[in-house]
Amino acid sequence: MLKLSQGELCVKRKAVLISIDGLGDRPIRELGGRTPLEAAATPTLDMLASEGVVGLVDPYAPGIPCGTDVGHLCMLGYDPADVYSGRGPIEALGAGLEIFPGDVAFRCNFATVDHDGKVMDRRAGRIRDGVAELASHLNNISLNEAVTAHFAPATDHRAVLVLRGISLSPHVSDSDPGGNNEGMAIQPVQPLDTTDAARRTAQAVQQYLTIARDVLNQHPINKQRVMAGQLPANAILTRGAGIVTQCTPLQDRFKGIRCAAVSGEATVQAIAKMAGMQNYTHPGITGSYDFNGDLKASAAIHLLEDNDLVLVHVKATDLAGHDGQWARKKTLIEQVDKMVSAIKANIHPDTLIAITADHSTPCEVKEHSGDPVPAVIWGSGVRADKQLTYGETACSFGGLGRITGKDYFHILIDLMGFSQKFGA
Amino acid sequence: MLKLSQGELCVKRKAVLISIDGLGDRPIRELGGRTPLEAAATPTLDMLASEGVVGLVDPYAPGIPCGTDVGHLCMLGYDPADVYSGRGPIEALGAGLEIFPGDVAFRCNFATVDHDGKVMDRRAGRIRDGVAELASHLNNISLNEAVTAHFAPATDHRAVLVLRGISLSPHVSDSDPGGNNEGMAIQPVQPLDTTDAARRTAQAVQQYLTIARDVLNQHPINKQRVMAGQLPANAILTRGAGIVTQCTPLQDRFKGIRCAAVSGEATVQAIAKMAGMQNYTHPGITGSYDFNGDLKASAAIHLLEDNDLVLVHVKATDLAGHDGQWARKKTLIEQVDKMVSAIKANIHPDTLIAITADHSTPCEVKEHSGDPVPAVIWGSGVRADKQLTYGETACSFGGLGRITGKDYFHILIDLMGFSQKFGA
Repeated sequence: MLKLSQGELCVKRKAVLISIDGLGDRPIRELGGRTPLEAAATPTLDMLASEGVVGLVDPYAPGIPCGTDVGHLCMLGYDPADVYSGRGPIEALGAGLEIFPGDVAFRCNFATVDHDGKVMDRRAGRIRDGVAELASHLNNISLNEAVTAHFAPATDHRAVLVLRGISLSPHVSDSDPGGNNEGMAIQPVQPLDTTDAARRTAQAVQQYLTIARDVLNQHPINKQRVMAGQLPANAILTRGAGIVTQCTPLQDRFKGIRCAAVSGEATVQAIAKMAGMQNYTHPGITGSYDFNGDLKASAAIHLLEDNDLVLVHVKATDLAGHDGQWARKKTLIEQVDKMVSAIKANIHPDTLIAITADHSTPCEVKEHSGDPVPAVIWGSGVRADKQLTYGETACSFGGLGRITGKDYFHILIDLMGFSQKFGA
Repeated sequence: MLKLSQGELCVKRKAVLISIDGLGDRPIRELGGRTPLEAAATPTLDMLASEGVVGLVDPYAPGIPCGTDVGHLCMLGYDPADVYSGRGPIEALGAGLEIFPGDVAFRCNFATVDHDGKVMDRRAGRIRDGVAELASHLNNISLNEAVTAHFAPATDHRAVLVLRGISLSPHVSDSDPGGNNEGMAIQPVQPLDTTDAARRTAQAVQQYLTIARDVLNQHPINKQRVMAGQLPANAILTRGAGIVTQCTPLQDRFKGIRCAAVSGEATVQAIAKMAGMQNYTHPGITGSYDFNGDLKASAAIHLLEDNDLVLVHVKATDLAGHDGQWARKKTLIEQVDKMVSAIKANIHPDTLIAITADHSTPCEVKEHSGDPVPAVIWGSGVRADKQLTYGETACSFGGLGRITGKDYFHILIDLMGFSQKFGA
């Protein structure tokens, strides 16, 4: 219990919110019809479930598979329909580009095209070296009608494009022919509605892509690649156009709450930034299989000193789901259990511990599914239910019932003492 | 598990969705406080509940009684507020009239009126014979302001009227004085808002009704009826105006899913048509008490060969609810159990089986009620809960929790592998 600045005594608690990416799963025959979470040895998670309250969370809505971006927006109490606007803006934030309301952003690939504009490789031989140098020549380009183009490299052959100007629209088609369509021509970018904004945006993208091909064709890096027998990165493909909407930071929504995030993944870092959270980064904290629970636990413990809410994100479980590796997912969950134990042992006993996921990634599906995710909230003030374990089936009988990700966050915020009364 | 056309392996399952119309009920003293479903011997349904996951479904929202049309729209994942627009369009589809977005449709009765325009019988002596002949003279009539009227007979004394033209509105009053109001005058059709569209539509209906009375008065069938001492069908009454909105077919919403429906009832056939489903019909498949489970099972098994989702609708249970015949409802549910058994025994074991209802029709109410309906999903991939029977009370403790009809459909679609990811 903390004292408010006004001198009024009020129950305020800190909380750690642990997001186990893709945690939810379906029964697996080899695990005796249990899920990886149900089969894993998780003494800490089970203790939290036993002493706390559990439930099933539909990150967005029942049966709707969420992306990591949408799942985390919901987990932080945002309505994705208000905020979300295509992957482009999220990726742009992740790539470190500043974006402002009204900007239209695109996911891009460096690609290899032939003389006729046919795509030979959508990833330019998965180019990595020289990408930053190439990107620097594609940044800050003025286009017609007072539109400027900002460009930044992302991971490997990926990049982002942000168009800034008056009255732009995300309703334009992709130039990227998509998934496995090598051999198809780059698609002309076309307006997807009849507005002037869509027409002007489509023209601006088209103009930018033409300039980009000229710049890339002449660049020494590509000449060297051709001489070395490598595919040149001689074109940009665009997809996932989205417009940036204003996102009210958490501190403005919930009584000045101070929030930080621990994640090695660009998408979650971008969502955290949009929500006004401090992003903690460390070279040893990644979004890959090399999950380091000790590092994440230390970071969370440290950040809780000056923050009210700390989000800790674990990506590896989702990767195991995508790869269909249920044994690996089970082992990773057991490592998460140890991380939670380390966090719990080193924080103020009044701190709430909330654990859930952004979506399910069942090993049988190898993709995100619409199955609800198990959720727990532990700590003083919580109305404990009678469930003894943290698992998908146990959670379906829990005291939280079946709620959305947004509801779950609001419940946590309320237990923390940061909720705003509706009415008088 | 099926292969996708792109060659990508993905978990896709087929499903049969069984809609037991009006299934939900309330405790009946004579059944020892059980519902007809709970009292019925349903070994197959109980087995599915035991191995699958159950829950309570509010077709639209808790406490809101749904019509068969709205209940089935929700059961197929539509938001009735987006699609539904009065009963007129649904009945028009059911009567086989083509309708297009912008059309305004009305439910009609053939009626008997006296010389002063007072309604002597709202159903013209429940006329059946000659109705098609009379209707043919009321079809394809041009009205003022470029509006054309299309008319078709429905069941017995019922018919439908569709107005087609520029800028029509469903916001007009009924000419039908309603339920038990024999002796009241035909009501003037009036605009219900101040728009030009409503004013023009009301005038068009009024003009049509005048023409219809002239045509009907002169028709030999009515002259014969009067001579035979029968009530003439000398007027049309209109009610339930609705405008037709575009309805995105299921295949466009869910990755090209192929769907078919088995139903003997015009309303459900119309909803299925709106959803882009193939309607299977057979003279032995009716919407009456003469439920033929063998025919429906054969049809479902056959249709599952070329479809991903087959809806099987049983109407008789609803009729028993309306008639307050709990013993008959219980017997019918036992026949449905046998139909489900026949289906299950003859389809691929990976096929999901989902069973629910469009609404409750409690025998004590003899009308649709807002009670939630019991629901089950059975098949591989399902997170089984601990409930052992399929009944209203058991379902209230199930792993699905309490969800809406739309949620239930989205969960089924997700288990089938046809859901679209929201976000990235």
